[in-house]
Amino acid sequence: MIFASDNWSGAHPAINEAITRESAGMAAAYGESLLDKAVEKRFNEIFERDVAVFFVGTGTAANALAFAAVNRPGGVVLCHREAHVIEDECGAPEFFTHGARMAPVDGPDGKIDPHNLERELARFKPDFVHAGQPMAVTLSQPGEAGTLYSASEIEAIAAITHARGLTLHMDGARFANGLCATNQSPADMTWKKGVDILSFGATKNGCWCAEAVVFFDPKRAEQFRYIRKRGAQLFSKTRFVAAQFSAYLEDGLWLKLAAHANRMADRLRDGLDGSSHARQAWATRSNEVFAVLEHATAERLRAEGAQFYEWNAPHSMHDLTGPGEMLARLVTSWSTQESDVDRFVSLLK
Amino acid sequence: MIFASDNWSGAHPAINEAITRESAGMAAAYGESLLDKAVEKRFNEIFERDVAVFFVGTGTAANALAFAAVNRPGGVVLCHREAHVIEDECGAPEFFTHGARMAPVDGPDGKIDPHNLERELARFKPDFVHAGQPMAVTLSQPGEAGTLYSASEIEAIAAITHARGLTLHMDGARFANGLCATNQSPADMTWKKGVDILSFGATKNGCWCAEAVVFFDPKRAEQFRYIRKRGAQLFSKTRFVAAQFSAYLEDGLWLKLAAHANRMADRLRDGLDGSSHARQAWATRSNEVFAVLEHATAERLRAEGAQFYEWNAPHSMHDLTGPGEMLARLVTSWSTQESDVDRFVSLLK
Amino acid sequence: MIFASDNWSGAHPAINEAITRESAGMAAAYGESLLDKAVEKRFNEIFERDVAVFFVGTGTAANALAFAAVNRPGGVVLCHREAHVIEDECGAPEFFTHGARMAPVDGPDGKIDPHNLERELARFKPDFVHAGQPMAVTLSQPGEAGTLYSASEIEAIAAITHARGLTLHMDGARFANGLCATNQSPADMTWKKGVDILSFGATKNGCWCAEAVVFFDPKRAEQFRYIRKRGAQLFSKTRFVAAQFSAYLEDGLWLKLAAHANRMADRLRDGLDGSSHARQAWATRSNEVFAVLEHATAERLRAEGAQFYEWNAPHSMHDLTGPGEMLARLVTSWSTQESDVDRFVSLLK
Amino acid sequence: MIFASDNWSGAHPAINEAITRESAGMAAAYGESLLDKAVEKRFNEIFERDVAVFFVGTGTAANALAFAAVNRPGGVVLCHREAHVIEDECGAPEFFTHGARMAPVDGPDGKIDPHNLERELARFKPDFVHAGQPMAVTLSQPGEAGTLYSASEIEAIAAITHARGLTLHMDGARFANGLCATNQSPADMTWKKGVDILSFGATKNGCWCAEAVVFFDPKRAEQFRYIRKRGAQLFSKTRFVAAQFSAYLEDGLWLKLAAHANRMADRLRDGLDGSSHARQAWATRSNEVFAVLEHATAERLRAEGAQFYEWNAPHSMHDLTGPGEMLARLVTSWSTQESDVDRFVSLLK
Repeated sequence: MIFASDNWSGAHPAINEAITRESAGMAAAYGESLLDKAVEKRFNEIFERDVAVFFVGTGTAANALAFAAVNRPGGVVLCHREAHVIEDECGAPEFFTHGARMAPVDGPDGKIDPHNLERELARFKPDFVHAGQPMAVTLSQPGEAGTLYSASEIEAIAAITHARGLTLHMDGARFANGLCATNQSPADMTWKKGVDILSFGATKNGCWCAEAVVFFDPKRAEQFRYIRKRGAQLFSKTRFVAAQFSAYLEDGLWLKLAAHANRMADRLRDGLDGSSHARQAWATRSNEVFAVLEHATAERLRAEGAQFYEWNAPHSMHDLTGPGEMLARLVTSWSTQESDVDRFVSLLK
Repeated sequence: MIFASDNWSGAHPAINEAITRESAGMAAAYGESLLDKAVEKRFNEIFERDVAVFFVGTGTAANALAFAAVNRPGGVVLCHREAHVIEDECGAPEFFTHGARMAPVDGPDGKIDPHNLERELARFKPDFVHAGQPMAVTLSQPGEAGTLYSASEIEAIAAITHARGLTLHMDGARFANGLCATNQSPADMTWKKGVDILSFGATKNGCWCAEAVVFFDPKRAEQFRYIRKRGAQLFSKTRFVAAQFSAYLEDGLWLKLAAHANRMADRLRDGLDGSSHARQAWATRSNEVFAVLEHATAERLRAEGAQFYEWNAPHSMHDLTGPGEMLARLVTSWSTQESDVDRFVSLLK
Repeated sequence: MIFASDNWSGAHPAINEAITRESAGMAAAYGESLLDKAVEKRFNEIFERDVAVFFVGTGTAANALAFAAVNRPGGVVLCHREAHVIEDECGAPEFFTHGARMAPVDGPDGKIDPHNLERELARFKPDFVHAGQPMAVTLSQPGEAGTLYSASEIEAIAAITHARGLTLHMDGARFANGLCATNQSPADMTWKKGVDILSFGATKNGCWCAEAVVFFDPKRAEQFRYIRKRGAQLFSKTRFVAAQFSAYLEDGLWLKLAAHANRMADRLRDGLDGSSHARQAWATRSNEVFAVLEHATAERLRAEGAQFYEWNAPHSMHDLTGPGEMLARLVTSWSTQESDVDRFVSLLK
Repeated sequence: MIFASDNWSGAHPAINEAITRESAGMAAAYGESLLDKAVEKRFNEIFERDVAVFFVGTGTAANALAFAAVNRPGGVVLCHREAHVIEDECGAPEFFTHGARMAPVDGPDGKIDPHNLERELARFKPDFVHAGQPMAVTLSQPGEAGTLYSASEIEAIAAITHARGLTLHMDGARFANGLCATNQSPADMTWKKGVDILSFGATKNGCWCAEAVVFFDPKRAEQFRYIRKRGAQLFSKTRFVAAQFSAYLEDGLWLKLAAHANRMADRLRDGLDGSSHARQAWATRSNEVFAVLEHATAERLRAEGAQFYEWNAPHSMHDLTGPGEMLARLVTSWSTQESDVDRFVSLLK
């Protein structure tokens, strides 16, 4: 009954098989092998356009290097107040951008409110150097709170972002889960709505270590190979990342795995709705569920072997929990077993 | 006949098997799994003392983060003029240290000359803030030129380094090759001679992506977990790195693989010594060989399928090659086949 | 009628005289002159203890370099949401610290609320590397909103700060104005209440360019001379800064000038209280006044020659102003003339 | 008899008068005053074209921020091995550029040898990301060794630099001394020969603290105001810098002061040539002289009150001095008195 995080899962057998298969023989290093090139082309197909794609090792690297690629002196990235980039990356975005500021924007459901974004951007005047200058807006799809932006919400944020000449970045650490939850195509959820750069995560959804930065306008990526190497993210044996992506993107494996994770989360949500000892803290989709539990219930679940984290949200937890209650984050993954979900739910009754 | 680089090799079957085996089930992320902890302990055994070990993704990351860990404002790292950290890491050491300077020191055979090191260090006076302050000395074992420091050379450099209160770092991207070539124990080649921090590389020698920073004084590593995370080098599914190291260090696999690579290089060296169309540029050990070839010979070899790089050394190539000649770097690896070496050698006759 | 900022004022005649006087002859550069040393000692007297003092060129430099001196990897500085370091320094604190995050803390009257500070700090757990680690708390005295911390408020914040092993920094860009407004000694308002490092500003209060970083524990300043030089803040002819401080601190000039500025602000505050076209937005002390004006009134004042800025506060302005109103910041200085204040006030009637 | 450095001199009376005169009344801060704008225009006249000019506080800041303005990821600046930017700025250029590397190029007389520059640049291949990428070449006019590039030497270096798409920067810490020594106009010595950015120093030559970054193509300066503010180099009361430049550039004061310093150096050079106890180490022009002295002579001079530094050059001092000799740097300035020179020379006889 492990709902601690989807990165507690291992790798799917097809991923391991691909890695093993590609291990034979010699191949050019640093992204120059035939496999690397073939997988890069695969991204073009998936996104229905020519993209520039760069493999990196961690989601934090993908986000931080993406910001570095579009940074300006005194740069500011606008993100949701509870975004991973501001809360959970130990300052990597600031570090890799030489000190860009992650500026928190409020909004319900873990999502940037377009009105607040506009108000915050309005505070930057072209002639007021002291405030610095905005350079990007970033949204997570799905977000830290397990929620999803609608197509029109992304469009609204993109319009505001582009009206100011800024870059719209999407943190897609759980990109496949987002696609499945919204039933959209990769193109639909990204560049067709105005997203300029995507952190494409595969690690959480069945790979070992496969993340990519995807530029929808390849021209903007011209300096990125230097940014990646200087950032110590250019693997020598890149074919091991390429191999993972190759299997991940073949025959829709990635979407099947994500759909499973989402279904397991649905089952958890249903269980919570039917429980008198717990409730959903807010409505989520995709593979994250937030539950308000009595401390006693949490202890009982843990005693039975359940693992999950108390959610350390900046503000929300104080409002949503009553006395004696805590806010638990429950994450499912491609490898979550139905029987584990069912046992957890039955313990809630 | 691929002698381009040892990072053109893939992964050894035992490595793939370990990765696949460890992929089952859930395990704590971010270095907290049982496997991670077990492998960390394995490093204690290998080095015959308690060490602090941190897995990272690339050799460049290992070097750059090690320097970041011991940096001082205005810091200077003294390295050989042709060191990887100054020539081949796209400024990553400078980037991760917020601008420390890699100061080149001359010396024959790709090795720091202790006398030159002392003279260079003497130029930094405690009261002269303008020059900055030295903070570390780094040596590569084996070095970029395929040569090795003797035990007494390392001791001499360590004595100079420590007399100034500096840190001695060893770039061990080919650490196992160095051990086999010198017939030393890991402890003997490092902390027993005064090395403080080691970049322990396993990628080139049969792993996919397994590098570690080893602190011989764990107290100096207290801030390193933040340095690694901020540097985007903390993998979520660290067990995939741990699994590689686990197999690599089991039953002496790592030393067997390195010994094979070194033997293949010996065979190449013998072949060059018996050739009238080529010669060793200088005496190397371990798994790198530098050959002076006529351009015509190089073209003929390449036409037959041989792959190798022209060596872009800052100075040496100009002195060692005559008209119509070029300097080739030939690297063997754990997966180099004897038949390839023999065919290459026969083409030189 | 210029109330735009105290940095619109020039320099006091005594400052110019000192600069001119000290311009004769040769003197050691880079802080080594007799005058530099004498002025450094003067700071010991003023603060009633041995301090380490470093002259720099701008208040932004003083703040940013102070943070750099106590930074930790993944470091976080807690400051008020509207603090100068987060709003008005174009990312310099983040830049000089290699990406430390300025974390906003809420609190009324432009001051950190100790309860909020504690709650924010509690979110950093020693075992959760992802959030980074707090390294300092900074408060401005007086703050951007023209308000002042009481002695017990500083003590409360210092207690929380030190209980976590953090550094307490005070941004004293208007330090003298704070002393006069609270009638405290320099020692009383700083280290006796737990302040560890002070940005001591003199530029706004009658100097040209004289700022200092004061470490109340000189041991913590051991690396600072490198930090300052690397940060391009070590002037060659430092005696021109020393000369300014020398005159500034002689015969209480600094306190006389600040007292005058505060008195002019009192006069403005009285005028606002007696006006039917304007009101104080909140109670301030020292030399800043915030006024809610009808737009028409603001236009009328400007037409008569008054100069002041609309205050671009993140949140407060939206709550405090009604329709047709704006929030004006009025700053007085050592050179503000009583007649200008009186004319401004009369125009408000 | 102080020949320690030209930054041991104070400020010329005309500079102090201008500062004092401009101290009256209120003026817009942060570079927006009428005086600031007028002085900026004065630079257009002096350089016979529209330039973008930015005042900063130190020569180190001018150099480091200029590099930051043209930096690329993994960027490399090529400079002479003994350049101030690599030897004497405590890593500020590396710091402000987020880790660009200062790559030393050899050449006699403290000047970059164009052939060596070309050879060094040739080592950077567009497809070899590991080496980083060159982004600028910098030369000092006059250089650290007191020598000057001829017009054709600057043109040759500019041609090589521009052929690679790089920026040519000139460190003009002693720009006026260079103009006087070569009898060139400011335009002739800079943009007409291919210089793109100039660090224009006035501090050493009679100002207190007046340095400027001059972009000969204003379009390249669009982001510089953010770079300067983020770098903590935007003074609030910029009119005090503007006032210095105003007086400095009026009626040719700057050239008169520099000519005096150069003449005093000529007198020193003549004295050395006529001495049997000392000799010029190499031929210099402008206001720096390098003398080989017996240690006993140096001691005798110092006992008589002479002050000068032993020159800590990386290589040259070892070749030029015999046993019992040292290499002294003698610097004259606008305030050096003929009688001091004559007394020094007489002591050498």
